[in-house]
Amino acid sequence: MTTATTRLNDVDLEAMGTLIAAIGDDPEKADTTWSAVVRWDGGFRSHSEIRDFAPTASDEPRGLGGTGSAPNPVEQLLGALGNCLAVGYAANLTAAGIKINDLRIELEGDLDLHTFLGLAEGNAGYEAIRVAVHLDAEGDETALREIHDKVVATSPVGHTLGRAIPVRVDLA
Amino acid sequence: MTTATTRLNDVDLEAMGTLIAAIGDDPEKADTTWSAVVRWDGGFRSHSEIRDFAPTASDEPRGLGGTGSAPNPVEQLLGALGNCLAVGYAANLTAAGIKINDLRIELEGDLDLHTFLGLAEGNAGYEAIRVAVHLDAEGDETALREIHDKVVATSPVGHTLGRAIPVRVDLA
Repeated sequence: MTTATTRLNDVDLEAMGTLIAAIGDDPEKADTTWSAVVRWDGGFRSHSEIRDFAPTASDEPRGLGGTGSAPNPVEQLLGALGNCLAVGYAANLTAAGIKINDLRIELEGDLDLHTFLGLAEGNAGYEAIRVAVHLDAEGDETALREIHDKVVATSPVGHTLGRAIPVRVDLA
Repeated sequence: MTTATTRLNDVDLEAMGTLIAAIGDDPEKADTTWSAVVRWDGGFRSHSEIRDFAPTASDEPRGLGGTGSAPNPVEQLLGALGNCLAVGYAANLTAAGIKINDLRIELEGDLDLHTFLGLAEGNAGYEAIRVAVHLDAEGDETALREIHDKVVATSPVGHTLGRAIPVRVDLA
């Protein structure tokens, strides 16, 4: 049983309810724009600045010409997908009244370096991404599978990767 | 003029050359797999673990039900794209012998929350991503434009977003 002081899974369903009601009144409230600024720090090092948060560092491994000081961009992409799925499980399991004991998400992606290195034309990005979700929650297997399907069907980062998104890059 | 002690743009072209030569000898060396592990921390908070680096925190803004303690996954995705493009400019400008004075990359993406919130079916992810690259480098405009085109054509994260990538998510 949840009360005002012991929220299930520590998820603030009330804030989501408020947002959903606001979008019901004005659908344009669902149109959001997100942003980031990246600054180059020399070599293959850079960092991203998002809102007022501390910058997140990026680098390539030494074998790829970097100094190995931070995760590289394709690893960051996997992290973003995993974090997005975690939000999806937390939101949908909580909405179903199911307590989460533990959630660990393992991600991996295959990438052929030929295009990035200028040795061939073609896909420079991931050819496939695999995700293994280790979910320990109180619900029965059927309920957990249904919620899993819903999470995958509604993941913003998952959809961005699974679809061809127009990416326009201009020299300003 | 670059010497062993003053590398142009601080980029280690030698390491990239070694890798390119190794792939020439054995093309399978270009087949790489990258990974990340994400762990849920309660609410909409989680963190990604990549190699031995300090974990990277993730959260949603308060308006979306989070506690606003860290960038959210769709912002992290934009950061990953910007960091990837920064590596591309650094690599290709350095290979062309062009000194970079400053590089700042501004990214934004539009996202309709209806699908994520379960209010509609369809695309939960970015509908479009726009990137403005502010490049201050020593080359002439034609050279910089050519390199810009090459960077966009060979960006691993850019290609992953611009194409439909198979993303398989399994309950383990």
